[in-house]
Amino acid sequence: MRRALNFWVVGGDLRQVKLAQFLVEDGHNVQTYAMEHRPNPGMLPGSDTMKGMDQADCVILPLPVTAEGGIINAALSDLRIPAEELLNELSPGQVVCAGRVTPQMRVLAEQKQLILRDYFEREELAVANAVPTAEGALQIAMEELPKTIYGLRVLVIGFGRIGKILAHRLRGMGAKVTVSARKYGDLAWIEAYGYEPEHTGQLTGWLSSYDLIVNTVPIRVLDFPQLLDLKEDCLVIDLASRPGGVNLKAASQLGVKVIWALSLPGKVAPATSGKIIRDTIYHILQELEI
Amino acid sequence: MRRALNFWVVGGDLRQVKLAQFLVEDGHNVQTYAMEHRPNPGMLPGSDTMKGMDQADCVILPLPVTAEGGIINAALSDLRIPAEELLNELSPGQVVCAGRVTPQMRVLAEQKQLILRDYFEREELAVANAVPTAEGALQIAMEELPKTIYGLRVLVIGFGRIGKILAHRLRGMGAKVTVSARKYGDLAWIEAYGYEPEHTGQLTGWLSSYDLIVNTVPIRVLDFPQLLDLKEDCLVIDLASRPGGVNLKAASQLGVKVIWALSLPGKVAPATSGKIIRDTIYHILQELEI
Amino acid sequence: MRRALNFWVVGGDLRQVKLAQFLVEDGHNVQTYAMEHRPNPGMLPGSDTMKGMDQADCVILPLPVTAEGGIINAALSDLRIPAEELLNELSPGQVVCAGRVTPQMRVLAEQKQLILRDYFEREELAVANAVPTAEGALQIAMEELPKTIYGLRVLVIGFGRIGKILAHRLRGMGAKVTVSARKYGDLAWIEAYGYEPEHTGQLTGWLSSYDLIVNTVPIRVLDFPQLLDLKEDCLVIDLASRPGGVNLKAASQLGVKVIWALSLPGKVAPATSGKIIRDTIYHILQELEI
Amino acid sequence: MRRALNFWVVGGDLRQVKLAQFLVEDGHNVQTYAMEHRPNPGMLPGSDTMKGMDQADCVILPLPVTAEGGIINAALSDLRIPAEELLNELSPGQVVCAGRVTPQMRVLAEQKQLILRDYFEREELAVANAVPTAEGALQIAMEELPKTIYGLRVLVIGFGRIGKILAHRLRGMGAKVTVSARKYGDLAWIEAYGYEPEHTGQLTGWLSSYDLIVNTVPIRVLDFPQLLDLKEDCLVIDLASRPGGVNLKAASQLGVKVIWALSLPGKVAPATSGKIIRDTIYHILQELEI
Repeated sequence: MRRALNFWVVGGDLRQVKLAQFLVEDGHNVQTYAMEHRPNPGMLPGSDTMKGMDQADCVILPLPVTAEGGIINAALSDLRIPAEELLNELSPGQVVCAGRVTPQMRVLAEQKQLILRDYFEREELAVANAVPTAEGALQIAMEELPKTIYGLRVLVIGFGRIGKILAHRLRGMGAKVTVSARKYGDLAWIEAYGYEPEHTGQLTGWLSSYDLIVNTVPIRVLDFPQLLDLKEDCLVIDLASRPGGVNLKAASQLGVKVIWALSLPGKVAPATSGKIIRDTIYHILQELEI
Repeated sequence: MRRALNFWVVGGDLRQVKLAQFLVEDGHNVQTYAMEHRPNPGMLPGSDTMKGMDQADCVILPLPVTAEGGIINAALSDLRIPAEELLNELSPGQVVCAGRVTPQMRVLAEQKQLILRDYFEREELAVANAVPTAEGALQIAMEELPKTIYGLRVLVIGFGRIGKILAHRLRGMGAKVTVSARKYGDLAWIEAYGYEPEHTGQLTGWLSSYDLIVNTVPIRVLDFPQLLDLKEDCLVIDLASRPGGVNLKAASQLGVKVIWALSLPGKVAPATSGKIIRDTIYHILQELEI
Repeated sequence: MRRALNFWVVGGDLRQVKLAQFLVEDGHNVQTYAMEHRPNPGMLPGSDTMKGMDQADCVILPLPVTAEGGIINAALSDLRIPAEELLNELSPGQVVCAGRVTPQMRVLAEQKQLILRDYFEREELAVANAVPTAEGALQIAMEELPKTIYGLRVLVIGFGRIGKILAHRLRGMGAKVTVSARKYGDLAWIEAYGYEPEHTGQLTGWLSSYDLIVNTVPIRVLDFPQLLDLKEDCLVIDLASRPGGVNLKAASQLGVKVIWALSLPGKVAPATSGKIIRDTIYHILQELEI
Repeated sequence: MRRALNFWVVGGDLRQVKLAQFLVEDGHNVQTYAMEHRPNPGMLPGSDTMKGMDQADCVILPLPVTAEGGIINAALSDLRIPAEELLNELSPGQVVCAGRVTPQMRVLAEQKQLILRDYFEREELAVANAVPTAEGALQIAMEELPKTIYGLRVLVIGFGRIGKILAHRLRGMGAKVTVSARKYGDLAWIEAYGYEPEHTGQLTGWLSSYDLIVNTVPIRVLDFPQLLDLKEDCLVIDLASRPGGVNLKAASQLGVKVIWALSLPGKVAPATSGKIIRDTIYHILQELEI
């Protein structure tokens, strides 16, 4: 970013705090709102009201932008700000960046003639977030298993963004990595990177040797027959968003330990997550020529 | 492949010979034609005529299938077989697999009611071929440069299939790897894998530190201004298909050494290439339920 | 191991429990003693007395073998067994394997004509233990830092067993790894593996860029002047045995977060540790031709 | 090196030429002698006589310093200079660095009161040279085999300097790497780095699956029984110095292709080799406080 801009960072959790700090370090003018319970509050300016927000070059809202009932997500604040109320404060033509924008909010923003961008929809954020997600899964495996990652027999289900990075890191740690996918092209990639390939649709009967299975696809891939096949102390980590890839009821009946881990980036690496959001917002502003 | 099939392998180079041998090793019945000058001819059956070809479960033609004038490619044969003549020998409904099929041939095959599949268009072949291509580029660099790959400052232009594998292997050898791309998503991948990212459109003025530049994109990326910027003994390897990514005339004027290396898989690793074609043909047959 | 042997596994923690289980899985006859509070006690036989121990082909004592006062280490037992009392139960010529044997115990064993071997002194155990130690350090870093390991600037002090494995794993995770050593030979290794080299004696003034520093050498390398140099949120993990490599008092004054992590293998990966001890004992027995 | 020194670089091959150039680039005063047929002779000063050599801060002789008959090695010169004649030109107390110094030369140097150092005996040179040696072996394998390194089943015999680096690079290229050694400690290292371990003394009967075997130990490890076991197209590269590790007669009888590759650094990477010698000489001078 060539010139100093005026940012307002509103609501959110530790990631937004870090994001605001990085913007300050980059030389921008930053105001925060609805994060009054942040750690080391003196390190960042904080406003008690939304006054002046309509002058910002860019207003940054959290990820996800709203909680139940259309209230702005604000884990570090006592304030309950309806999204509509916030948007009402802004001027036509103002740039707003938010994560996981709801259709209602999109409609509202259009009515107010705001330039609303969802940074969560950007490819580069999704890719960059795969790194803390993969590390979070690794950390869980380290904490839960009495064995080293080195020498562990691991199955990664799916070779999308998270599958790619996770397999890469696991191998970097010395695990024996198998990756399953469905398309011939993906299977060719799995082989070219040196992992053992399996077909996701043909796992049943071939699951008994793994110490760890990490699912990354949002389809029910581990159902009763598959879970029945696991060896006694196999750990299952499910990274798939709702409804998840594991039949939790069957797992519970069979005594299979499953950890359903969602939203890892914000939990395991809020500073990195804040940086990823900052970079993505810079790209958005660059494309808007701001 | 569950049951033994009848294959005819026709024309081509060492890759087709290896392909035929692998099919034999897998238990299939194989006849060859138009490769009478192959090494160790006794290891494979060979026919003098096309008689019986119409009974094959699958006829495999070379990559590329035809040379100038629509003649079947046959580097290991004295025969000059027009594609049309060959297709005339086949029965309606017969399966033919060929590489880089021309539009004319496609029309002909349709007229004869043949099931023609181009294995060169398959994603898994393209991915798998990236491995011998990357190794071929590495071999050229080893042969041409008086330095080790270890410690070498390398720029890989493009993060498609070849760029991805090449960057991975170069780093595995200890090179300092920078990769350039244009999309934010690709740049995020480059970073996530730990390479130094650059924007392909903004290379000018930042090229003077590289010992080796490998281009993988089929666009003129290294023109006069970029080549002028290279350090004296920088080697350029261009893997891009015609018209190539380097201004060869400017390079020659400036004394920049450029190696334009095409079709590496067949040259550096014919056995691996034969195996890749075999695997792809198996996938095609599986999808045809043969 | 060709034939089934009789083992007694005495005292210790989870590692000894796992060790006993692995011996059972390998087909040996195993008796345990002084681990009556182990989890799943039914999975292993357990004796209330030392009766029969004198018939074992090999008696395995824990690591470290004794606690304060020469009492056998037995974290999972209420028994307090003086080492001398235990050795008195054994027959001359019996093989005893123990970890970190004290000089007193060595004298006692000689008096009783026992064949006493210290498995903790074996090179292969030390090397194998470097893996869980490195992973333990990585796990601490993941838990303590709000950043990903990917992209982290890390200094590993020392390129002995732990330094080698730790640097390898950190790079496998995408960290930017610098390693310091003192000998030219070690520095050449550090470079050959592709890490940034530094001289351990010349770190002062060059420490301000690291996010994480892991010390592996048992010498005071991080004293007041070095600690003063660290950036605000740098984490220090000290893996060096007593007296450690960090001036903890200075660190506390300067507000530097230091985690002094000892005996990681048993803590983070008891199963792996049990397996490492088993393998080492097999080697000892092989050399004794038992 | 803080201050400019006067170097004479005498004899040798391309490595010495590169070494001289690097010394110039570092700001030193350099004179060369006995390399008049070097490429681009204008890039370096060259003397016709040894006049002035006695004023040099350091005289650098080649690797190996002498050929048959005690003549200074000088592949790029018509001069035949007996070592004694050269040493006679120097002044007492002068520093001479040479590679693979013979006992006779050592005696001569002592008589002349010269400070003679053998850079080939330095650990850091041996380690650094393992890199071009490993790359040279890889290049041979690439050139000789019709397969990619990726997916290749490779056995590396010995886990010394070259074995360590070679195994690391082969894995970086996607090969399936087995390493054999004799000591339990080395075998533990092989496992910790994630290679398949084998005992060098127990290879017979287990050699039939490899596509490539690289020997690094100077003991006859591949004799008739072992060679008999290899699969038909297995390539053997022997990196061991005389007498080598392979029974070449037996190999020839059995039709096993063996490439005995010695002195690879100078052949495949003269520039890197020159840099390695330069670094080692700097270390020697630093220790001599020059």
